[in-house]
Amino acid sequence: MGIDPGTQIMGYGILKVINNKPQMEAMGVLQLNKLEDHYLRLARIYERTITLIEEYLPDELAIEAPFYGKNVQSMLKLGRAQGVAMAAAISRDVPICEYAPLKIKMSITGNGRASKEQVAYMLQKILKIPDENMLRQTDASDGLAAALCHFYQSDISSQTTKYKDWKDFASKNPQKVSK
Amino acid sequence: MGIDPGTQIMGYGILKVINNKPQMEAMGVLQLNKLEDHYLRLARIYERTITLIEEYLPDELAIEAPFYGKNVQSMLKLGRAQGVAMAAAISRDVPICEYAPLKIKMSITGNGRASKEQVAYMLQKILKIPDENMLRQTDASDGLAAALCHFYQSDISSQTTKYKDWKDFASKNPQKVSK
Repeated sequence: MGIDPGTQIMGYGILKVINNKPQMEAMGVLQLNKLEDHYLRLARIYERTITLIEEYLPDELAIEAPFYGKNVQSMLKLGRAQGVAMAAAISRDVPICEYAPLKIKMSITGNGRASKEQVAYMLQKILKIPDENMLRQTDASDGLAAALCHFYQSDISSQTTKYKDWKDFASKNPQKVSK
Repeated sequence: MGIDPGTQIMGYGILKVINNKPQMEAMGVLQLNKLEDHYLRLARIYERTITLIEEYLPDELAIEAPFYGKNVQSMLKLGRAQGVAMAAAISRDVPICEYAPLKIKMSITGNGRASKEQVAYMLQKILKIPDENMLRQTDASDGLAAALCHFYQSDISSQTTKYKDWKDFASKNPQKVSK
């Protein structure tokens, strides 16, 4: 499960891994900008994260976490949004991993400075999502991108490494070849 | 209940209000600086806050919340610490109020720039705490101070307003005096 918690909007995505291949299970956004109360926003983030965890029982939670912000005020608010989402994972014993936006874009498109559209395009291709409008929806793809990035970083994905032939294996695992 | 959640240490205090008078029920600190893992620190803050809420069933949670910090990095971490503590309150339906450090010092000592020692001294006097060493303990008094500040701000404390005599009442409530 991947989330991109912000104070205005939270994007989320759930990946199911079947035969070492990631499939999109669910994705969506939680709109927060209509809520004026700061605590109500935090409460919604916490509750939605709990609901998603209880519904999909994810093995791990990947969070998109920018490390730099406009100012200390916005970073405090962002930290709180991340904190309540993390608490939801902590309360359900779900391990947390965080990834910088650049890292996520890099792992999905090969370019750390890729646009939102490029990331959405690659997600659609990789996860074979039929309706591209789903990904065009603002921020909906950010959570899914975090989840896919985590899949690529994790052991699950490395198990999918296939070798074309013996030469390919030998060149990539010299320590396993006895001379 | 008052807390001062930080990434190094969390101070907490519980006040019991009997006959509109605040009494110290419990206070303490949660040491986090020995834990290297950031998520483990957040988990400890969340779990301890949950434990305190379940043990003392507070009506409200007051949080000491600085609005300015050294840099965006430290504010993000502080925001996360506050966020997990807030999530604990949210999950148990405990309303949250936050107070800036200056406001807390002001309401307890009358001086927004009071030292830690001055705040501890006033807490000892007001709450009639016999053992002053309890308050000298670093940061233990910060949570209690947040709780007492919240008591002074809340309706409960305003009910304690006593008038010396009729003149005092009349001068403070001119709208209630018919001429």
